Amino acid sequence: MKREFVPPAARFAALPDPFTLRCGGTLTGARVAYETVGRLRPERDNAVLVLTGLSPDSHVASHPADPSPGWWEAMVGPGKPVDTDRWYVICLNALGSCKGSTGPASTDPATGEPYGPDFPELSLEDIADAAAHTVRALGIERLACVIGTSMGGMTALSLLARHPGLARTHLNICGAANSLPFATAIRSLQREAIRFDPQWNGGRYDARTYPHRGMLTARKLGMATYRSAREWDSRFGRARIAAERRTDGERFGPEFEVEAYLECHARKFAGRFDPNSYLHLSRCMDRFDLGESSGSTTAEALARIRLEKALAIGVETDILFPLRQQREIADGLGAGGTDAGFLALDSDEGHDAFLVDIDRFGTPVAKFLTTL
Amino acid sequence: MKREFVPPAARFAALPDPFTLRCGGTLTGARVAYETVGRLRPERDNAVLVLTGLSPDSHVASHPADPSPGWWEAMVGPGKPVDTDRWYVICLNALGSCKGSTGPASTDPATGEPYGPDFPELSLEDIADAAAHTVRALGIERLACVIGTSMGGMTALSLLARHPGLARTHLNICGAANSLPFATAIRSLQREAIRFDPQWNGGRYDARTYPHRGMLTARKLGMATYRSAREWDSRFGRARIAAERRTDGERFGPEFEVEAYLECHARKFAGRFDPNSYLHLSRCMDRFDLGESSGSTTAEALARIRLEKALAIGVETDILFPLRQQREIADGLGAGGTDAGFLALDSDEGHDAFLVDIDRFGTPVAKFLTTL
Repeated sequence: MKREFVPPAARFAALPDPFTLRCGGTLTGARVAYETVGRLRPERDNAVLVLTGLSPDSHVASHPADPSPGWWEAMVGPGKPVDTDRWYVICLNALGSCKGSTGPASTDPATGEPYGPDFPELSLEDIADAAAHTVRALGIERLACVIGTSMGGMTALSLLARHPGLARTHLNICGAANSLPFATAIRSLQREAIRFDPQWNGGRYDARTYPHRGMLTARKLGMATYRSAREWDSRFGRARIAAERRTDGERFGPEFEVEAYLECHARKFAGRFDPNSYLHLSRCMDRFDLGESSGSTTAEALARIRLEKALAIGVETDILFPLRQQREIADGLGAGGTDAGFLALDSDEGHDAFLVDIDRFGTPVAKFLTTL
Repeated sequence: MKREFVPPAARFAALPDPFTLRCGGTLTGARVAYETVGRLRPERDNAVLVLTGLSPDSHVASHPADPSPGWWEAMVGPGKPVDTDRWYVICLNALGSCKGSTGPASTDPATGEPYGPDFPELSLEDIADAAAHTVRALGIERLACVIGTSMGGMTALSLLARHPGLARTHLNICGAANSLPFATAIRSLQREAIRFDPQWNGGRYDARTYPHRGMLTARKLGMATYRSAREWDSRFGRARIAAERRTDGERFGPEFEVEAYLECHARKFAGRFDPNSYLHLSRCMDRFDLGESSGSTTAEALARIRLEKALAIGVETDILFPLRQQREIADGLGAGGTDAGFLALDSDEGHDAFLVDIDRFGTPVAKFLTTL
């Protein structure tokens, strides 16, 4: 993957060599890219781990080594809901991604070439284990909190189940203990868009033959399901693209502002994310099942996770990770003795609300962390 | 289009020659395929017109000339909610479709070849005008009722607005007075799947080079949005495709039952529908705006439609034609003096509920028609 996709302030934690994956494959010389914001207290008791959704990198917020805004800039920083005057925030790029952590675009030491289609089968459990290893490599035996958003909410549950005692508390934001069939259907179609782009070529492409077309469609479909119909009604309505801004002369091409919006956002993403990484992480989410992974029901697996306190937050308009999934997390953790809360936010912004509707998310996040 | 896609009992109404379309194009020798079920009374006062969604043909229900089950077999027939012992039901294939009515797959008399990419710009207003012409060609000056489902609910409103007095009453089922941006986004992505299939080739394909891949993806995305997440949770959950039924050895191919279900249903559709027809009808829906078409607001346009009685039925779980759109229809018609009702059904089957959840839909449809 091009060097430019690795955030400039990313640091790297080496994983055990070889790093054995759950499905049997191994990675040699693998690493996890991470950044930290704030200061670790000498007692090492103020570390908060942020596990991300599918696409973000480790640059969660600005800090002296990289003053550019991070992907959760409004949420993380001095005096912000995740207050870095108090907390030492660690954010890492998921194993298998392409923003500095080892993934399909990384060089396979065995061949000197990118892994590409030969990257081994990955699971969210592997991503969780790599995250736990990174935390410990930073000298932290016990996290004050694990915050997981979207896919990161799944990874967080896996980490908590597989590494008992590593965290005191947990904030699950628009996450889930497994994937539901509608989300799987959408992700399956996103993967089709990439797989059936002739340029994907079974995963063997280079910068010149990058499957741009498939990535655009995949991202657009993502956008259509990350936000909510209600938001778009008021935001776009039936506005048409102004004639002077219409560039696609092709028949049946975009005519409405909502189509231009999707195209514009997809262009920012496609070309800056490795398609093979996208396929792996997308499928990791479909396959994730905390219960199955623990050899039990979802409720039993959640009840076995012991925490001091937890909060699961969801959004009424989220169609990918619907509210019943965050309620299930809170109920399951609560049944195991954790002081677990559930909060449903009436935001118009759908699954992505945690990124944009800081008015609604900021207060409960701040309140949860303040009481720790 | 292959002859086999035309239902065996379809009859044909010739349109005025030439038939001028709203965007300026013309069709020569155009026709509309239709079927009738039941008997027209000598008073010619018991005709009910059914306007379909994007994909159905004219074979709405079995009748002596074609005893095979129709697409709405459970709803239309002797003693059924649309009781053909009383009503003379006319169902027609939309102009621009490929099931017997003139569309892009039809032969252009000017060239002797299929219109293909040269089919003129179509609108739902044209489809409505062709339907009105067909009704009058059958010797009917006043319909007892126009029933429109999905796209047909849009077409029906256009017909009622453009042909005052042609119908006494109206039953709008999962329809809308215009398209909302989420539905447009989904349809835009369906069109992309077809447009970017290399075999589409700008609309120039034949049976050998039919863009099967794009049609499959377009139909799957349709299915994912026609049904509801809630239904799929109970129907599929996280069930995996049994190993012996997994045929796609390709990496990142289907693993879950929900993916197999989409593939199976899409295969039934793709290859039996003309991609250019699909593109035209899909865009007709995006462009449809009853208010804009009438040079007024949606509410004003609806209020100008004068009917004795109307009912708009929607489904709680419909994400494409959400309930607020059927409420808008009822409110608008009511404001114009029509005795207009609105009914929200709590069905798990989403937009497609009217096709499958006859338990819920049958009673209100029967009740509405009985009181006419």
